[in-house]
Amino acid sequence: MSGQSVGVVESQRAHFDQPLHLRSGGVLPAYDLVYETYGTLNAAKSNAILVCHALSGHHHVAGHYADQPDNIGWWDNIVGPGRPLDTDRFFIVGLNNLGGCHGSTGPSTLNPATGKPWGADFPIVAVNDWVHAQARLADRLGIDSWAAVMGGSLGGMQALRWSITFPQRVRNAIVIAAAPKLSAQNIAFNDVARQAILTDPDFHGGNYYEHNTRPVRGLRLARMLGHITYLSDDQMGEKFGRELRNSSFAFDFDVEFEVESYLRYQGDKFAGYFDANTYLLMTKALDYFDPSREDNGNLTATMARTRANFLIVSFATDWRFSPARSKEIVAALLANGRNVSYADINLNFGHDSFLMEDAHYHGVVGAFLRNIKP
Amino acid sequence: MSGQSVGVVESQRAHFDQPLHLRSGGVLPAYDLVYETYGTLNAAKSNAILVCHALSGHHHVAGHYADQPDNIGWWDNIVGPGRPLDTDRFFIVGLNNLGGCHGSTGPSTLNPATGKPWGADFPIVAVNDWVHAQARLADRLGIDSWAAVMGGSLGGMQALRWSITFPQRVRNAIVIAAAPKLSAQNIAFNDVARQAILTDPDFHGGNYYEHNTRPVRGLRLARMLGHITYLSDDQMGEKFGRELRNSSFAFDFDVEFEVESYLRYQGDKFAGYFDANTYLLMTKALDYFDPSREDNGNLTATMARTRANFLIVSFATDWRFSPARSKEIVAALLANGRNVSYADINLNFGHDSFLMEDAHYHGVVGAFLRNIKP
Repeated sequence: MSGQSVGVVESQRAHFDQPLHLRSGGVLPAYDLVYETYGTLNAAKSNAILVCHALSGHHHVAGHYADQPDNIGWWDNIVGPGRPLDTDRFFIVGLNNLGGCHGSTGPSTLNPATGKPWGADFPIVAVNDWVHAQARLADRLGIDSWAAVMGGSLGGMQALRWSITFPQRVRNAIVIAAAPKLSAQNIAFNDVARQAILTDPDFHGGNYYEHNTRPVRGLRLARMLGHITYLSDDQMGEKFGRELRNSSFAFDFDVEFEVESYLRYQGDKFAGYFDANTYLLMTKALDYFDPSREDNGNLTATMARTRANFLIVSFATDWRFSPARSKEIVAALLANGRNVSYADINLNFGHDSFLMEDAHYHGVVGAFLRNIKP
Repeated sequence: MSGQSVGVVESQRAHFDQPLHLRSGGVLPAYDLVYETYGTLNAAKSNAILVCHALSGHHHVAGHYADQPDNIGWWDNIVGPGRPLDTDRFFIVGLNNLGGCHGSTGPSTLNPATGKPWGADFPIVAVNDWVHAQARLADRLGIDSWAAVMGGSLGGMQALRWSITFPQRVRNAIVIAAAPKLSAQNIAFNDVARQAILTDPDFHGGNYYEHNTRPVRGLRLARMLGHITYLSDDQMGEKFGRELRNSSFAFDFDVEFEVESYLRYQGDKFAGYFDANTYLLMTKALDYFDPSREDNGNLTATMARTRANFLIVSFATDWRFSPARSKEIVAALLANGRNVSYADINLNFGHDSFLMEDAHYHGVVGAFLRNIKP
């Protein structure tokens, strides 16, 4: 891996008292955002990059905590001195989005009005709500405009939304493994995952915290299903094939094939720490995301509102948000004469490719960022 | 639709006292098979076609019952006078496989040894077990060799297995929308479906009959997930797009998009009548299916044992068992110099295409069968 890690990092917390009016019609009277920063904000406050997280991500993007050396940020491989998000040049900000389960205000945090966890009362949050909450964090940090806003998957959708909602505050947008909106099949997978959680008897209408239980079964199924869509068919075949856990068939419902072992392990691990209500909210944010809706479905009209330079990245083996979906964004930008670079990277990790270390992929992102004058 | 329906039909039941030794090592001491026949068996008993069913199918292939005019067979559109499976020429046999839930011996029927439903004690059944059970039904009917054995999806796998296990008893095999074995991704989807059922608190280790309940939630999820894999992405997009159930977003977890409504409806309907243990068994039969395993994975060596003429059919939009999987079968047959016809049909219904009425598709099947001399 080129460059170095940022090393020891610390999380910070910002409290916001000003009510946030949400796309759903709801209002958050006050909220906390947990965030981390890496590198140094320059005097002009012009070198800041916002990294937005995807479905299961959070504020801990890079480095590790002094007392948790193994707790390494989810995108550590791209952030640090000499890495594409070069902390010798840039000031990187990562945060946990509203509705999350890693410290920011969400369903599992206390609702001041009741003194109990928000649970089912936590409002549905949309990508644009996150962008507005992130803008207030930028205000707090004195950042008028971001050198870049970036992310993969749902994170890429936030970068796209930033460029539309606050065109004057985004000089560059890096949109990776994303789509301008979900397809019917995308929504269908999300709904099966949600139904697994919602129909788990331990869900208790979203107020499971009060019942000292968690809808572990439903969340586990949701994650198993998600994982199938994150990996490519080819990669699964190469990684697992039809390899048996044991040397011969047991002819029962325990694990027979390695792929079952892998999926169940992933499901168990995730269900052990992630909050089911947050999972529901994140998938709904995905479903609702469709900036072109404000322009009767005309994405070109929507992208006319942007001012940023764009880097759009897709992965050839991503069947969740295929390259064709990224090209829709590219086409709408080109139709408006925007500066847009596009790379389709031939990596074999499906949708998850965006998290991987790869010389070509990181080379493209690094080159784009090197050309930015903070 | 060309031709006519077979009209009023009746189911029959055959009891078998001879123990059936199963691939899993288990034994069924005795069993019943429920079946239907259409057309007339000729004097030489040489005009019989066996139609094998897929995951959720059964013996009621065509026609309707006198007292249930709306209960039409699942493949009625292809069977009848003047239809591709022409009952003026052929004697068609459909049966419910062992482990099924439509009358043949299965988890929900009584285990004579206990007087209670088999439940979890019902043994795992493999495709080759079905083929052996079907062979005994052929014996009972006096059919030495089938003019054709055919089916779609898991039904096509039975036709393939017939041609390998009993080469002298299959003159023609029609293998539609099938694969020589499941991929890691196929198995992964099956395992998520099974885990949904197995972890449903109402599953009671498979003995839910005794608890007067059924694992409806798990079965519903399994079917919802299955449906996504049966349809093509494009078809889902054309059929549902991002159309809303209501005119604006409700911002809750009820149905927002039409595709959610469709999937939940399909899940509810299926969970209302199908047996969860049968669903588990059918998916396991799919996972275990791999005739080439007997030849160390060399499918060409396996297909050398066949003697039938083959028609292999795939569908361009089928991503569950893609055309590439059918071509593996074709290649193994060609390598052995077998007579094989192959058609890839451009239908937009994904895996479910095999159930659809289409002039080109039915024309291919009809032409193949017209060339058979009973």
